[in-house]
Amino acid sequence: MNSIDTSRPPLKIRRVNLDTGRENVVVISRQSKALRPEIFRGFSRVELRRNSRVLLATLLITDDDSLVGPDEIGLSEPAFRRFAEPSGSLATVTPAVPPESLEAVRAKIRGQTLSASEIGAIINDLIHYRYSDMEIAAFLISSASFMTSDELLALTGAMAQAGTQLKWANPIVVDKHCIGGIPGNRTSMVVVPIVAAHGLTIPKTSSRAITSPAGTADTMEVLARVNVGADEMKAIVEACNGCLIWGGHVNLSPADDILISVERPLSLDTREQMVASIMSKKLAAGSTHLLIDLPVGPTAKLTSGIEAMRLRKLFEFVGDRFGISVEVITTDGSQPIGYGIGPVLEAQDVMAVLANDPAAPQDLREKSLRLAAHLLEYDPNLRGGTGYIRARELLDSGAALRQMQKIIDAQGRSDCRTELGTLTFDVMAASDGFVSGIDCLQLNRLARIAGAPLDQGAGIRLFKKIGDRVESGEPLYRVYAFDKSERDLTAAGAKSNTAYTIENATTPRNKTAP
Amino acid sequence: MNSIDTSRPPLKIRRVNLDTGRENVVVISRQSKALRPEIFRGFSRVELRRNSRVLLATLLITDDDSLVGPDEIGLSEPAFRRFAEPSGSLATVTPAVPPESLEAVRAKIRGQTLSASEIGAIINDLIHYRYSDMEIAAFLISSASFMTSDELLALTGAMAQAGTQLKWANPIVVDKHCIGGIPGNRTSMVVVPIVAAHGLTIPKTSSRAITSPAGTADTMEVLARVNVGADEMKAIVEACNGCLIWGGHVNLSPADDILISVERPLSLDTREQMVASIMSKKLAAGSTHLLIDLPVGPTAKLTSGIEAMRLRKLFEFVGDRFGISVEVITTDGSQPIGYGIGPVLEAQDVMAVLANDPAAPQDLREKSLRLAAHLLEYDPNLRGGTGYIRARELLDSGAALRQMQKIIDAQGRSDCRTELGTLTFDVMAASDGFVSGIDCLQLNRLARIAGAPLDQGAGIRLFKKIGDRVESGEPLYRVYAFDKSERDLTAAGAKSNTAYTIENATTPRNKTAP
Repeated sequence: MNSIDTSRPPLKIRRVNLDTGRENVVVISRQSKALRPEIFRGFSRVELRRNSRVLLATLLITDDDSLVGPDEIGLSEPAFRRFAEPSGSLATVTPAVPPESLEAVRAKIRGQTLSASEIGAIINDLIHYRYSDMEIAAFLISSASFMTSDELLALTGAMAQAGTQLKWANPIVVDKHCIGGIPGNRTSMVVVPIVAAHGLTIPKTSSRAITSPAGTADTMEVLARVNVGADEMKAIVEACNGCLIWGGHVNLSPADDILISVERPLSLDTREQMVASIMSKKLAAGSTHLLIDLPVGPTAKLTSGIEAMRLRKLFEFVGDRFGISVEVITTDGSQPIGYGIGPVLEAQDVMAVLANDPAAPQDLREKSLRLAAHLLEYDPNLRGGTGYIRARELLDSGAALRQMQKIIDAQGRSDCRTELGTLTFDVMAASDGFVSGIDCLQLNRLARIAGAPLDQGAGIRLFKKIGDRVESGEPLYRVYAFDKSERDLTAAGAKSNTAYTIENATTPRNKTAP
Repeated sequence: MNSIDTSRPPLKIRRVNLDTGRENVVVISRQSKALRPEIFRGFSRVELRRNSRVLLATLLITDDDSLVGPDEIGLSEPAFRRFAEPSGSLATVTPAVPPESLEAVRAKIRGQTLSASEIGAIINDLIHYRYSDMEIAAFLISSASFMTSDELLALTGAMAQAGTQLKWANPIVVDKHCIGGIPGNRTSMVVVPIVAAHGLTIPKTSSRAITSPAGTADTMEVLARVNVGADEMKAIVEACNGCLIWGGHVNLSPADDILISVERPLSLDTREQMVASIMSKKLAAGSTHLLIDLPVGPTAKLTSGIEAMRLRKLFEFVGDRFGISVEVITTDGSQPIGYGIGPVLEAQDVMAVLANDPAAPQDLREKSLRLAAHLLEYDPNLRGGTGYIRARELLDSGAALRQMQKIIDAQGRSDCRTELGTLTFDVMAASDGFVSGIDCLQLNRLARIAGAPLDQGAGIRLFKKIGDRVESGEPLYRVYAFDKSERDLTAAGAKSNTAYTIENATTPRNKTAP
């Protein structure tokens, strides 16, 4: 009796130069000798086997022999890389049996709750690229409407175990995390040098911008290399007590990277998935004490204290179950932090704060000191309540700046362009009054249209913040771009919505929103 | 100020021979002059414009200039067909703004219910190919867990209005529909000739097999052309009172075709989506009286009377709101109907019943008469309660057979191969006893492995049904295949599970399950 693997002739592997992102895609000829493509429609799934390697992939069909011949199977770039067998070698191709864990996804869709082992199997199939994008979407959406506490714990644990797991000599490993959404909010780049200068271990990994004009990793990259792997990271942290690197190279939560690649195009953003994403990375990073920053404001990710409290409870719950000491604080998310938006402009703000430049943005300085103070209090050798004084001392004395230089040297200087965009224009106030609101979402949008974070020197520099008095015609902010069409598009966007609300009062109602 | 459409150079359209199924896919060079592909990752979405045409598509990236050059945009087959602009003409390409109706999908994911206009907008974007497969999955899954009655009505109505809408001169237009899952259940091909011979209008459209070894359209195709469009269909029904064609060419519910293309790979199958799918097609087909057949059995789609009742109520509810007279009956779904499984074998059963062949399967005859009787009762000129007698009269007299020949002539003879597969083997009983169960799912699976419906003459002929006495070594069924490897695979599958349960009793427990 023939087995399914030998019943059809194998096909020759051919590399097809198509970047299909996360998804494995293969191409066969409509005259294929190994399959009957007419029984498949686009986006069917097939299984490739060679020796002990197995790859599940989505199938496209071609009639063009010069692309893929009848005795060949074309592997798109990610599929070719992951299957890791040479061009011209033979692979058997059969219709794919869907991963067994998909049955659990269907059960979740029907309203059942999943066990820890079911969730573990889903995550395991995910990181082995056995799910199609559609199947990932099915899992995400079925979990988006409802997830029990146990499911959240199981998801967090499974995600944490799926990638690299860091171990540290020091019993106290502190970390901070902000849920994002506030332009210019680069506190990590001030907090890490302060905390590291004090002597606590703070191995900080950050993300790159997904929908924003700059992530901490993008901004740090203006000053230093951030594409650092786990081993090098350990060496840097041993030498400097801390680091500021991109999390992507450390592979702390490959499952999260995959889930995000589907959440993003669908604009899915649920509390449970956010908590599982963040906490799984912190677990894998070996953090023992974690401070979480939740900015609240009308155009922040959280718009009310009630929302922030719900999220806080979820973080505390998961932290307690996994034995991480979690502290959650809500902060002012009513406007950008600092003056700059975009990698180079934000790096300038950070360095001005560390250098105690009198023109440095005071809100970035104050917020960073406050966060650093919380982290320093985790040091059992520090007298309770003196965290803030200690943080200010380390900043004012230049110790934090020196520590930052040491970290930059350890990570290696960056070869990024650090000049600002040469095509600039100012956006002016249309009337006299006081700035009563700044739309963070619109500023993020404008800075991205101007070219950030791809052009590191593109972005926005703010001249006015909430509570500032402005006169008609006075500049509110300056836009920096490199590309004429992007400059023009940003100008058009700013014309339709400047992001600023000016109130015609004689005195400001409040200097900062609650 | 430049608008977004003219700020980047347009790209030359190039046809790329890739069948990507339902989804629009385009390919650009990593050195593209019109986009910065590095800011996109695989499966980003872009918008193509030329004159008044707009196409949303999923983006792949290549480094191979021979596939797509820097000043070109490659359109995969479905995208090229739908955009309908010539190769070499210029199109502008911009990052796609997601369809507005996706906001409603996200609201549904968050647990909100949708208004009729929101659902209408989703369906409208769907049929204009503005949703990616992932976005379609998001809509389906968000609706799979929960859908209100109003949402179900809105979905049904929107789907019915999205395609061709048939109008008939006769005020009574009858139709029948079975939810499927039972092998050999080709009652439509007996019922339609009977009802049409009586004089009622019965414009029957059927589906092709999706996961089964034969749909009614596949089986009818053994006898006649079934790829018939709306206009030709009208002519056939005017001439013959009925037809038996494939629904795909009539385009009664393009939205349903798209939704099914995503439901299938995800194996989604919810009551609400089933009802919306069926009822939208019947509404669009102009049916006034509809009989729905719900087979219930251990390996049928419905496994209990309670499930069947819930589904019945949903059909009745939607029928009432749209003014269609809906009658729902539950039938025996414990085993296949007739002897044949696969297009040619099932067509043989149908013709034997119509020809009053004494060897014809009596279960197919009886079930068809029962269904036809219900439909005939819709005729106001027929005395109440005489439907069955009239149906039997039309069948026994040969009037139904003559009507079928007339329909076949009107649709045109088929050019299908009608011989049976030449590679055969029998599956034998392993012990003496009575057949107490037949697994419909396993028989469907085996018949598909044997090559059905792609090979019309492949499939299974049953020798034994539930209640039949068998002796060890006696054949239970015969498998027909054309391809050696498929024959072997079917044999392997039948060896691991014959689909038959033999009970070692001296008398059968029951001749047919309830």
